[in-house]
Amino acid sequence: MENGGAKKECAFEKENGCGGGGGGVMKKKWCFKANESISSASGITIRGTLAMLMGSRNLNDSRETIPLGHGDPSAFPCFKASLVAEDAIVESLRSAKFNSYSPSVGIQPARSAVAQYLSRDLTYKLSAQDVFLTVGCIQSIEVVVSVLARPGANILLPRPGFPIYESRANFSHLEIRHFDLLPESGWEVDIDQIKVLADENTVAIVMINPGNPCGNVLSYQHMKKIAETAKKLGILIISDEVYGHLTFGDKKFIPMGVFGSIAPVLTVGSISKKWIVPGWRLGWIAVNDPNGFLKEAKIVEGIIGYMNISTDPATFIQAAVPRILEDTTEEFFKNTISILRESAEICYDEINEINCIYCPHKPDGSMFVMVKIDTSLLEDIIDDIDFCTKLAKEENVIVLPGIAVGLKNWLRITFAIESPRLQDALRRMKAFCDRHAKQL
Amino acid sequence: MENGGAKKECAFEKENGCGGGGGGVMKKKWCFKANESISSASGITIRGTLAMLMGSRNLNDSRETIPLGHGDPSAFPCFKASLVAEDAIVESLRSAKFNSYSPSVGIQPARSAVAQYLSRDLTYKLSAQDVFLTVGCIQSIEVVVSVLARPGANILLPRPGFPIYESRANFSHLEIRHFDLLPESGWEVDIDQIKVLADENTVAIVMINPGNPCGNVLSYQHMKKIAETAKKLGILIISDEVYGHLTFGDKKFIPMGVFGSIAPVLTVGSISKKWIVPGWRLGWIAVNDPNGFLKEAKIVEGIIGYMNISTDPATFIQAAVPRILEDTTEEFFKNTISILRESAEICYDEINEINCIYCPHKPDGSMFVMVKIDTSLLEDIIDDIDFCTKLAKEENVIVLPGIAVGLKNWLRITFAIESPRLQDALRRMKAFCDRHAKQL
Ligand SMILES: Cc1ncc(COP(=O)(O)O)c(C=O)c1O
Ligand SMILES: Cc1ncc(COP(=O)(O)O)c(C=O)c1O
Repeated sequence: MENGGAKKECAFEKENGCGGGGGGVMKKKWCFKANESISSASGITIRGTLAMLMGSRNLNDSRETIPLGHGDPSAFPCFKASLVAEDAIVESLRSAKFNSYSPSVGIQPARSAVAQYLSRDLTYKLSAQDVFLTVGCIQSIEVVVSVLARPGANILLPRPGFPIYESRANFSHLEIRHFDLLPESGWEVDIDQIKVLADENTVAIVMINPGNPCGNVLSYQHMKKIAETAKKLGILIISDEVYGHLTFGDKKFIPMGVFGSIAPVLTVGSISKKWIVPGWRLGWIAVNDPNGFLKEAKIVEGIIGYMNISTDPATFIQAAVPRILEDTTEEFFKNTISILRESAEICYDEINEINCIYCPHKPDGSMFVMVKIDTSLLEDIIDDIDFCTKLAKEENVIVLPGIAVGLKNWLRITFAIESPRLQDALRRMKAFCDRHAKQL
Repeated sequence: MENGGAKKECAFEKENGCGGGGGGVMKKKWCFKANESISSASGITIRGTLAMLMGSRNLNDSRETIPLGHGDPSAFPCFKASLVAEDAIVESLRSAKFNSYSPSVGIQPARSAVAQYLSRDLTYKLSAQDVFLTVGCIQSIEVVVSVLARPGANILLPRPGFPIYESRANFSHLEIRHFDLLPESGWEVDIDQIKVLADENTVAIVMINPGNPCGNVLSYQHMKKIAETAKKLGILIISDEVYGHLTFGDKKFIPMGVFGSIAPVLTVGSISKKWIVPGWRLGWIAVNDPNGFLKEAKIVEGIIGYMNISTDPATFIQAAVPRILEDTTEEFFKNTISILRESAEICYDEINEINCIYCPHKPDGSMFVMVKIDTSLLEDIIDDIDFCTKLAKEENVIVLPGIAVGLKNWLRITFAIESPRLQDALRRMKAFCDRHAKQL
């Protein structure tokens, strides 16, 4: 018995003992209450904000709701998953060979397939041992943040960004320091600011490329500068490439791993976006670190240790990964890209026809664009939340308020939707802005 | 910019700044290192121990390896998954309606199906809102432990037990207090000890029923006593029913939720064991609390909050849950139970024919039995790890050392395997013990 502990009397008699529950004549006390880090960690979620907006709609409006709020186009017919991927799952399930638990780092053939897939764009080769399979990139983020969160440490996160990083860092008591992405330079990183923010307790910087929420794609030169800065600061780079290859502008997607010999890179990604199957929950962490610094600092051991006490992606889905990565046709990806390119263009052009809102940068990748609201031109809209709530109510269009991704008085618009519906939404937004504009 | 932070100079020049990596002529320093709670949390894992034993085998031994170490019989032909369950998955995948993200608590039809399924054995009805879907019971444990872990709190865990509880509590800095399961009374809980261990910071007690690793099944009377004790102590019960309904002795399985109006119960479970598909990763947390104490103490809110920042089970697997729970034939379960009953009997009888090891209690449920080693009768075996390592090496039989589940000098034997192979393994164990017995 390793813990003595005072003998505990009947809870009914305790006066100041436990907090929590209660009620009833007997003045019952319960000792449990929830961990408060959770409510503070999960405070600002995209899901929660969108649910609130859905609730603000006018149910008497007979027009269909147009959802430009979330990053999941899989429900739209034009973004249907490929048959190859679906067949791969059915085959591995029907084989009945993958009903068992998988190793906590993932099954070997799937790790190997992801390593090969990622190596296509690198100048060196990743091995299966460099890849860890996760239940989607959400879990990759959970693992990486949990491993880096030692007492006193801090992490550099982009603003605007993807709020799960904030939530997970808060939950793990990893201090957050925000650096700005600069709209006037195509949402590039403010490198000088990073140097000012970082100190000897800074452990990592997060980059999301192609960008959510900005739709930007980083250039080779800029990425190299980021890697060199990371090296100078002695920090690693977490490169979120969940939108990898979803580019349609002038800039090609370059994985941060290319600079892995300058500074160590943990790449997080998944099949959610490129294969448009976010519900399949299959992601990865790849260690891009030819110099072995992450191994030396026991970061790799930490990843394995954390995965040992965590859940895994379904084994038969893992078993389908080699076929999904190798056999999906180029046609499938080309179709996605061409829809996104067209939508991004419509979105950019139409928005800049609307008074009171303004898009500083035409998206080159991902599925999102950031749009600035000029509240000074609006009569009765006080901020982005007010804008989005009234837009939902009056026009049945759902758009994410920028505050949910860290930028007040901006909007994040998802353009991954069929163009007729996108155009309809933009017309409604125009009518909305015209109606609410100040009379000059 | 919310954090100033001292301007950070080039890491190459720092002398005592960051720890971690290094090497090379330039005396490079990196600032990252792994969170140390992880290595301490994930120290003792069943997987790790079994991997070590697999590595101890003599590869020149031509006999097949007989794995009696882990709780996953899905690879054995006699425990094949049901076609109904497989068809349900294929149908939901092929419909292409479930490729999207699911709500973080799970999709409504699946939550509702689990609520109905669990309500069959209760005197009140659970609603869909009482059920949260997880990526297997492993994630249920992660969620529940994370929600309860507030600073200063402690949790009562059974010894022997299931080590993921220890790992997750350690990782969340939730203090662990162990209570003993008593072999001489059929592995019942030592209720007096619980009263001594608990204090005003105790938040919960974990029960695993049917038992892993003991193979015991709790009686109605004993469960009622546990619930009444929990009420007195003001703590909630976490009832791990992942082996629910897998009983084959005299005692019927009774869910702890039956006593939910005495003390609040969080039931954790999954389809892993009863449907023999642990690789499908679908589990749940059910709130059995007709008085609403957990809601009042914001535990339910905490669960929802934690799930908002966590990953989810694959949506198309969730969509198959109603059919899996409703349409699997009784035949399928009867077959499993009858194999387990036969194996448990063989195991109990044969072990008690072996000198030096002893089984105090014939299993009534789950897939495991605990067996005591009498090291005083053995010539050159110092403890359970030594026993298992030599057994792997000399006989190609894998058995889990008790220390991995909290009891030194015991063994945990899985009997969920075809009887001819089980008998073969037990013959090899007998030969092993005879060979290592002291000459009297
Ligand atoms: C930047 C970013 N990272 C990670 C994720 C999570 O992706 P997954 O579906 O693989 O969990 C998302 C999802 O929207 C995202 O936008
Ligand atoms: C007692 C106990 N709880 C939970 C689990 C995890 O089950 P799942 O496969 O649903 O994650 C296991 C698995 O062996 C177990 O034995």
